[in-house]
Amino acid sequence: MAQDKKLVEAITSMEEDFAQWYTDVVRKAELIDYTSVKGCMVIKPAGYAIWENIRNELDRRFKEAGVENVYLPMFIPESLLQKEKDHVEGFAPEVAWVTKGGLEDLQERLCVRPTSETLFCDFYKNDIHSYRDLPKVYNQWCSVVRWEKTTRPFLRSREFLWQEGHTAHATAEEAEARTEQMLNLYADFCEEYLAMPVIRGQKTEKEKFSGAEATYTIEALMHDGKALQSGTSHNFGDNFSKPFEIQFTDKDNKLKYVYQTSWGMTTRLIGAIIMVHGDNSGLVLPPKVAPVQVMVIPIQQKKEGVLDKAAEVRDALKAAGIRAKMDDSEKSPGWKFSEQEMRGIPVRVELGPKDIAAGQAVVVRRDTREKITVAIDELAAKLPEILASIQHDLFEKAKKHRDSHTYEAHNKEEMKDLADNKPGFIKAMWCGCRECEDAMKEEFGVTSRCMPFHQEQIADTCVYCGKPAKKMVYWGKAY
Amino acid sequence: MAQDKKLVEAITSMEEDFAQWYTDVVRKAELIDYTSVKGCMVIKPAGYAIWENIRNELDRRFKEAGVENVYLPMFIPESLLQKEKDHVEGFAPEVAWVTKGGLEDLQERLCVRPTSETLFCDFYKNDIHSYRDLPKVYNQWCSVVRWEKTTRPFLRSREFLWQEGHTAHATAEEAEARTEQMLNLYADFCEEYLAMPVIRGQKTEKEKFSGAEATYTIEALMHDGKALQSGTSHNFGDNFSKPFEIQFTDKDNKLKYVYQTSWGMTTRLIGAIIMVHGDNSGLVLPPKVAPVQVMVIPIQQKKEGVLDKAAEVRDALKAAGIRAKMDDSEKSPGWKFSEQEMRGIPVRVELGPKDIAAGQAVVVRRDTREKITVAIDELAAKLPEILASIQHDLFEKAKKHRDSHTYEAHNKEEMKDLADNKPGFIKAMWCGCRECEDAMKEEFGVTSRCMPFHQEQIADTCVYCGKPAKKMVYWGKAY
Repeated sequence: MAQDKKLVEAITSMEEDFAQWYTDVVRKAELIDYTSVKGCMVIKPAGYAIWENIRNELDRRFKEAGVENVYLPMFIPESLLQKEKDHVEGFAPEVAWVTKGGLEDLQERLCVRPTSETLFCDFYKNDIHSYRDLPKVYNQWCSVVRWEKTTRPFLRSREFLWQEGHTAHATAEEAEARTEQMLNLYADFCEEYLAMPVIRGQKTEKEKFSGAEATYTIEALMHDGKALQSGTSHNFGDNFSKPFEIQFTDKDNKLKYVYQTSWGMTTRLIGAIIMVHGDNSGLVLPPKVAPVQVMVIPIQQKKEGVLDKAAEVRDALKAAGIRAKMDDSEKSPGWKFSEQEMRGIPVRVELGPKDIAAGQAVVVRRDTREKITVAIDELAAKLPEILASIQHDLFEKAKKHRDSHTYEAHNKEEMKDLADNKPGFIKAMWCGCRECEDAMKEEFGVTSRCMPFHQEQIADTCVYCGKPAKKMVYWGKAY
Repeated sequence: MAQDKKLVEAITSMEEDFAQWYTDVVRKAELIDYTSVKGCMVIKPAGYAIWENIRNELDRRFKEAGVENVYLPMFIPESLLQKEKDHVEGFAPEVAWVTKGGLEDLQERLCVRPTSETLFCDFYKNDIHSYRDLPKVYNQWCSVVRWEKTTRPFLRSREFLWQEGHTAHATAEEAEARTEQMLNLYADFCEEYLAMPVIRGQKTEKEKFSGAEATYTIEALMHDGKALQSGTSHNFGDNFSKPFEIQFTDKDNKLKYVYQTSWGMTTRLIGAIIMVHGDNSGLVLPPKVAPVQVMVIPIQQKKEGVLDKAAEVRDALKAAGIRAKMDDSEKSPGWKFSEQEMRGIPVRVELGPKDIAAGQAVVVRRDTREKITVAIDELAAKLPEILASIQHDLFEKAKKHRDSHTYEAHNKEEMKDLADNKPGFIKAMWCGCRECEDAMKEEFGVTSRCMPFHQEQIADTCVYCGKPAKKMVYWGKAY
């Protein structure tokens, strides 16, 4: 069985080559496949099922937060893209252009949306007239295109799936509140659902979104000590509403510009799950996001009664609301264990003739490999507890990893030493100057990840120039 | 309140101008908005929520039928599109071409997918090796682009949302069974969920999908007597697997080509719902697909206790699993009734001080306008029955309309008379020749909708040429 072999043959260890380990996991856990379209990937069933769970849970939280879904065109006329100066400068160099429709050359070329601020503005301009039409809290689930030169599955590809929320408000305060609300929704989602701790903060001027007044971000630390920007929320003020002329008549009968926000999360989160929780046996999925939570694996399945009992257990688990499957393929139990581990299924239940005779089964946790003997009759009651415990422990483990890889630098020398030798977050004070930020990237290879909402005064002077410090910043190397 | 007025001012009656009535409904029920992108539309919250219900229910049925979701790139390299001769001839004239990525001209231009057979083939070629890898029963939810010259909201637009299933099988028989299974799934979905009766049948050679061996279709009759193709399922045989070289090693150790199918449904279904169930007050949504099933409308809502009682009723309905909302805006009850009717919400519950004093409410059906007095305490128990009854009655009404607009033609004269004077389906025998089919279009303006699975021998000779008949065909004018 050549295919089984391919799946479970050893993957590169993460200590040896983290990038190769990552590529091995995405391929061997069958999350993606490469395509003839350079820089684009196929998201295979195991990968797409993770995205479906992310989407469904985020969408549920969105709807609780008053968000309504819409769908806007994938094409943006060039003239529309150019209306906001900073925005076009940020995106024009990396868009794909449609120049021909059917057999005819287009009079105006269209870009495939890299993000849809401009289209939402064009829509809101016609849809908003009065304060009664506000707020607009719309979101769309779609794919976007950015013509990246170097790509990596989930982390950076020319096309990716995401959601983009775009809102319009009567006041600056309301826009600011929505920007923060959505960032916190993202952070809670990452921590509660993906078991991934994040730092909440604000991007510097240099790192903020093209056209935004302020960009908030959540930053997670991967297993290799690199940071991953996991979700962003932007407050545009009236930067877009002025060039796009989105005005409304307020209660005081005056014509005013709306205040806008946007916020997005992408399939990149799947990359984050892999790099936060994965190990040298493959993927490790937190139970809440796992498409299959429990794999029942019969041992000596040809013996009478084994398959029947295994199916009975699977059905009892499903009836208890657990996403359970049974692997009754003709592979050996060893292969099946390796496959279940590679695919990151949180728990397997081993069930053989001796177990059945003793009225028990062996439950094996994917994260710790701990084996727990449970009476067959109690599986449906015990497994939710075990799954909850895995979810909790994965978060704690990731948090411990992050905290133990978060350092402080008080001067250039410490910064250089940490940047060279200690992969992780580096907390350091900053004067607020673009020059220092550029120099830190140039000399130490680190970028500002965020100015955390939770500030600490770890020194009084800028780590780079020694002038009075304004903010504590998380620095790091990033995906 | 200019906006309310705009919404509820009279729409064109369907008897006066059906096309204008349709446009009025999609705009005034706030399903779509036009955009700066010619031929593309914004699907607004009320429209998108209908699509979400369609998607969720179809997806649930797909998963029960063993379908797995994936996501493939939106771009197709020109060389890939050209591999299957008939397919490229069918689609090349109506695709959008990306010729530039970022600042560089592409070496090979990419089309924005009009459909993804060629990409799935390219993927399957690498993913399928052995009979153990079969069948592949994959589907994706995405948008596609076809550069149509004339467009209409939902019915024909340059970009639309759909699902496209693509399967690969070891045998021709299995592919044929899957083609039929999915067509029947579509038909059941339309009849059970959208309350829309359909004719199941096969397309003629002329009307089949480019590259298919056989195309099955479901055809529905709109209120104006025109047909709408509502879903199709294609059996490709090995037409694609040969040029794409998708081969597998079978159990007998021989290398064989796979057999393939594809099947799709689109946002066009929303157009069908409008044109099958709508009336001169606006949209009429079957309860199963309606995003809001019941609107509770308080009367004299400023009187003490009215809003509280209305909210209590809404909450009780929601607790009973009904998608209920309350309209507590400051508009007059009359406006609210008109809005609820325009938006097609299946039921409204009117609740004023007198009703509350009498412990009852007035339930008004959207479809029949029947008023039913129900005790407030019994609303949560009675409304599911009323909604089920509306769902049932809408189907029966649509079926009655279709059956009473289905005619038989036995010769050219009858065909011409029906085509000119009786909008609807025309059943007539056909010899099987392309020439007769072309002539019927030329002379009578009708196309073959399908050769129904349920055949009737209504004559022995072709309605056009008089030669021996092979098939009974449904003919009609179509969207």
